[in-house]
Amino acid sequence: MSDIDSTTVTAPQRILMGPGPSDVDPRVLAALSAPTVGHLDPYFLQVMDELQSMLRQVFRTENELTLAVSGTGSAGMEACVVNLIEPGDRMLIGVNGVFGTRMADVAGRAGAEVTTIERPFGEVFDADEVAAAIEQTQPKVVGLVHAETSTGALQPIEEISKVVHDAGALLLLDTVTSLGGLPVEVDGWQVDAVYSGTQKCLSCPPGLAPVSFSPAALGAMDARKTKVASWYLDMSMVRNYWGGNRAYHHTAPINMNYALHEALRLVLAEGLENRFARHRRNHLALRAGLEALGIHYAVPEVHRLPQLNAVLIPDGVDDAAVRKQLLNEFGLEIGGGLGPMAGKTWRIGLMGAASTNRNVLLLLAGLERCLADQGISVDRGAGVAAANGVYAAQA
Amino acid sequence: MSDIDSTTVTAPQRILMGPGPSDVDPRVLAALSAPTVGHLDPYFLQVMDELQSMLRQVFRTENELTLAVSGTGSAGMEACVVNLIEPGDRMLIGVNGVFGTRMADVAGRAGAEVTTIERPFGEVFDADEVAAAIEQTQPKVVGLVHAETSTGALQPIEEISKVVHDAGALLLLDTVTSLGGLPVEVDGWQVDAVYSGTQKCLSCPPGLAPVSFSPAALGAMDARKTKVASWYLDMSMVRNYWGGNRAYHHTAPINMNYALHEALRLVLAEGLENRFARHRRNHLALRAGLEALGIHYAVPEVHRLPQLNAVLIPDGVDDAAVRKQLLNEFGLEIGGGLGPMAGKTWRIGLMGAASTNRNVLLLLAGLERCLADQGISVDRGAGVAAANGVYAAQA
Repeated sequence: MSDIDSTTVTAPQRILMGPGPSDVDPRVLAALSAPTVGHLDPYFLQVMDELQSMLRQVFRTENELTLAVSGTGSAGMEACVVNLIEPGDRMLIGVNGVFGTRMADVAGRAGAEVTTIERPFGEVFDADEVAAAIEQTQPKVVGLVHAETSTGALQPIEEISKVVHDAGALLLLDTVTSLGGLPVEVDGWQVDAVYSGTQKCLSCPPGLAPVSFSPAALGAMDARKTKVASWYLDMSMVRNYWGGNRAYHHTAPINMNYALHEALRLVLAEGLENRFARHRRNHLALRAGLEALGIHYAVPEVHRLPQLNAVLIPDGVDDAAVRKQLLNEFGLEIGGGLGPMAGKTWRIGLMGAASTNRNVLLLLAGLERCLADQGISVDRGAGVAAANGVYAAQA
Repeated sequence: MSDIDSTTVTAPQRILMGPGPSDVDPRVLAALSAPTVGHLDPYFLQVMDELQSMLRQVFRTENELTLAVSGTGSAGMEACVVNLIEPGDRMLIGVNGVFGTRMADVAGRAGAEVTTIERPFGEVFDADEVAAAIEQTQPKVVGLVHAETSTGALQPIEEISKVVHDAGALLLLDTVTSLGGLPVEVDGWQVDAVYSGTQKCLSCPPGLAPVSFSPAALGAMDARKTKVASWYLDMSMVRNYWGGNRAYHHTAPINMNYALHEALRLVLAEGLENRFARHRRNHLALRAGLEALGIHYAVPEVHRLPQLNAVLIPDGVDDAAVRKQLLNEFGLEIGGGLGPMAGKTWRIGLMGAASTNRNVLLLLAGLERCLADQGISVDRGAGVAAANGVYAAQA
């Protein structure tokens, strides 16, 4: 019958040190392939309840409306925007990378009157400039990216949140790359709508988007005069399935929710603070190793994400050739630059299960080999030695 | 650190004979848990290419724009609607169940001027009434549901498609429950936009939505004056990732695509015609068994879906109690009624891997037991005997 000769899936075993997806623990893959049950099966309802409880712990929130949207991180972004925005609402968005740009696009499609403030890639916003822009535009919602996956920059939130709430606005935050890798304090920072992805520091395959909404965000949703633009992402219906009367909305991705359940269990079993410290430790070792190889960061030290190391590609080095060699010779994936950083930076992820001393040392060893093939002279073993030095000092 | 005592995932082994998800072949679960690779990994690009090729065969189309949307079936519905509809466009929708109602809701949110034609649950539309409605409303798009999961009714398409195209409109078709279980002829019927789900007759866990768009649909997209309302589902960008220049849009759900790849491979290895015949054979056996137990269909014979048997709950039988007993004593899931059919019908799925003689016989045996517990007198073993009789006659 068939003219296709596709074989079964024979995926290679990579080491995922790009901007995501990250390495997945075998226990998460095992949960992913547990028997599928119905979306109203009592067992699945229990999985959903536990999942919500664990998500609240990871987001550090008491928000009742905390769940996993049935799409990837960008669906989480769209869910947050379209549920808060009605046509004509004003939204202020900080753009200092690809994902702020994306948020502005999503908001415009939802009918928002979008104002952006902009910073070059790699920089972050301070509270004063956000306050000035709020005063000018009087937005309903202010959208920011906590951890810009395209640049490796970490946006401080606490002070800005005060400015946003003093002006009576809602704060919407992208934590796709931060959640599980460094502190995300949804209640502590008074974040009103937050989304993340599963495939970064939570180390679950891509496919779901954890979200959480504050009581103030719920109030804004309840006060809507128009339907949410997206039926699929309409939280007024989705929340009835995750809580309340379990009314059927759409068929949940059962197995993906199993995987996220297990991934969150592993995050909490390790402990959030331990996990953040691990990400920091491996980042410091990688940094020392890269510097010993003559590779420098694209982001000022104070704003660097430990889990996503954006570094400048040394002059004369062929970006694509190095990434291809790392993949083919070592099964090792790192990311290229996005947007204006394409060809200029590498993005080296140390996210979740991929944030290990083994991966740091292997990458440095492999990179030394690739740089040598590119005719770049480096001290033999310098990267590995520097990283090992950091680990030794920490021990 | 954690105050949660969640254990690892311990999903029970169900037999899924509801309206979906259906039973998943162990080979599909194995593919689902293959190692995660990056969304631009050469291996994943190959998986996507093969997936598209297999989807074209299953949809029976040459449409280039054929891929899996990163969400469940309802995201596929929304993808088809929002890419074809601009604010103010007229859309005609046939409503004879929950999913036609949903399509009208989705289209309204996208800004369509929606006109519905309606039929009671379980009935279908004929070409004349569609032609009359088209003449009155001059729609850009006509939306119909091929297999109404809420009612078990099969909508004939061929004649209606002619009427739609004679009027210069586009035909949008929901094949969530039909694809892989009975013929879906996207090119043969000139369907312009079609969506399905993975968790019905393709027997893959829920999480992706196969879609396909005709050249005429692409023309309508290219002629848009406004952006697609949903960034996440905007095919003008999604298609560049699946084909063309592989431009990053969103991170694809890698492992779910592995699973769909394997599910489609199994569909094509069986052969579509063999698969349809199997669905038909088990339906006939189930029907004979149910009738012997005094259980009657809610849909006239000529429009019955072989893969979704909507039957009337006998008088005096406690709907929830029977479904609970089937689940708890036999690990067997059947579905209740949706919308106006709640409490009135059961929906018994024989979809994909769940369409087997074993499942038919087990359900009839279990149902006999439950009916007896409900005080309904049935001839002992009558259901199983009748089904076995059909299998014997077919052999």
